Amino acid sequence: MKLASIKHGRDGRLVVVSRDLSRCVAVPGIAPTLQDALDRWEQVAPRLAEIAAALDNGELSGSLPFVAADCAAPLPRAYLFADGSAFLSHVELVRRARGADMPAELYQTPLMYQGDSGGWLAPTAPIPWRDAAWGLDFEGEVAAITGDLPAGCDELTAATGIRLLMLVNDVSLRGLIPAELARGFGFYQSKPASSASPVAVTPDELGDAWHDGRVQLPLEVTLNGKPFGHPHASAMHFSFPQLIAHAARTRPLVAGSIIGSGTVSNADPSVGEACIAERRMREHQADGTPHTPWLMPGDKVRFDMRGSDGQSVFGAIEQQVAAC
Amino acid sequence: MKLASIKHGRDGRLVVVSRDLSRCVAVPGIAPTLQDALDRWEQVAPRLAEIAAALDNGELSGSLPFVAADCAAPLPRAYLFADGSAFLSHVELVRRARGADMPAELYQTPLMYQGDSGGWLAPTAPIPWRDAAWGLDFEGEVAAITGDLPAGCDELTAATGIRLLMLVNDVSLRGLIPAELARGFGFYQSKPASSASPVAVTPDELGDAWHDGRVQLPLEVTLNGKPFGHPHASAMHFSFPQLIAHAARTRPLVAGSIIGSGTVSNADPSVGEACIAERRMREHQADGTPHTPWLMPGDKVRFDMRGSDGQSVFGAIEQQVAAC
Repeated sequence: MKLASIKHGRDGRLVVVSRDLSRCVAVPGIAPTLQDALDRWEQVAPRLAEIAAALDNGELSGSLPFVAADCAAPLPRAYLFADGSAFLSHVELVRRARGADMPAELYQTPLMYQGDSGGWLAPTAPIPWRDAAWGLDFEGEVAAITGDLPAGCDELTAATGIRLLMLVNDVSLRGLIPAELARGFGFYQSKPASSASPVAVTPDELGDAWHDGRVQLPLEVTLNGKPFGHPHASAMHFSFPQLIAHAARTRPLVAGSIIGSGTVSNADPSVGEACIAERRMREHQADGTPHTPWLMPGDKVRFDMRGSDGQSVFGAIEQQVAAC
Repeated sequence: MKLASIKHGRDGRLVVVSRDLSRCVAVPGIAPTLQDALDRWEQVAPRLAEIAAALDNGELSGSLPFVAADCAAPLPRAYLFADGSAFLSHVELVRRARGADMPAELYQTPLMYQGDSGGWLAPTAPIPWRDAAWGLDFEGEVAAITGDLPAGCDELTAATGIRLLMLVNDVSLRGLIPAELARGFGFYQSKPASSASPVAVTPDELGDAWHDGRVQLPLEVTLNGKPFGHPHASAMHFSFPQLIAHAARTRPLVAGSIIGSGTVSNADPSVGEACIAERRMREHQADGTPHTPWLMPGDKVRFDMRGSDGQSVFGAIEQQVAAC
């Protein structure tokens, strides 16, 4: 099934969305918010699935047109956003750009940091721009939303805890990263609020495109209406169950925890990129200098992912940069 | 006023607590949970203050004995725990132990990382112990709980956004820190769930002991019933408004964001310490080797802070380490 949160108060109003993203229906009698549904998933999910089936079969009266612009992020405020770096070609590019090797342990243990989880931007919300020197960038990602998971859970348990999948634009301030990482405490100010796709879907919605704990589809990225990249999300070196088990190694994860894949990235440069930083690194390697500028007010970014039927799975993230 | 969350469901049941921590009363007609009260603070706070005054004046019927063991953390799950390192004698000790200088910028900009905010331990909950090699430690801290604050807010705005103060035991896994920090992404697995004092209080409850954006009281730390330290919390190099402005520089803070002071620490070794790591660094400097072991199952830690009247302000964090 597909779920979304229509803008309403702090946590949105949960709706079940039709598979083709054309219709939706609120379900206040089942769960008013997505967080509430995740808190009581075992009871709630079967009832939501019944609604979804009826909606897809045209058997439900009272549904409304689904409008992505009316959506908040699926979880407008969440208790955890732990973002991994599962696409190692991104890590390799970053390190090669500064002449560093890839230590073997980077292939064994995911890099992960905690991002802002309390203030998710809506899928069509402006991206705040404050200072050119901050180097505003986007990062197209896939993310899993988990149920409750115990500390120290193994990958099989982690796999069963995946409730929903969605797209994420992990907004990054490249100009703040070097100084922040040099201080040794990791990312904080360099990772402001991220945005998410209008719709979060249960893994079974992906059919064959969900296996090995990975979404087996390309992420379509456009910048100002022009194709920027279509790297394949199947190239995750670490699967979602591996990322989740890493995130839960020393702490329980509460229902509604969001685990990001890191920037979708492929070794093949012909597929393009899901962030400007990677494009600039390739330009620097090829030409000795980067050409593509960081985001500026007015720039438009778009992320979408289509199934084998050509239909959008999650709806698109479509944002314009705005000075504030 | 003083507020607590009695264990109930995922978010606890909000109670107003008497100043002397002897009585409490649930306020479901005003706000069922502390998060809900923080979400609507302007409407809710005056009504809670009336209840608190009536409770302190003995004019309220229906109050119950207040029992710290019945308490969850004030916010059992929160949307942000951003922990600063405001006590620079702690940072100086850490760096001196490895022969490093104190760069000038550490006096100008706080170190800060994001800790686990979704799974706060209750004030009397066992501290989970899993592996001796993980080097389990406590860190006694003070923390502020904020209202909504806009991105880029200045210190004056940040100061007006402080809703509540509480104590925190920032549980740390010292054995995991070196390898984790060496990877460059900061703390994650080395910072499992923390615990908090039974009671969170509005700053005015501290009277003269709240000024300069700092709590002007010593933190009493005991380990297995013996005094371990009583460092003064006034020694924060960065005030809470400064820490909050740092935390909000590139993102809005949502109501219920928790901003930690970092380990309370004083330059004077005679006052002792609020974490084992600092004790071990001083032992290493004095004797060439640390003597105090990391926490093991059965160990008991206690944190308390008393006002000038000798009464506990926040109630005590009292935890025993338990293998799990």
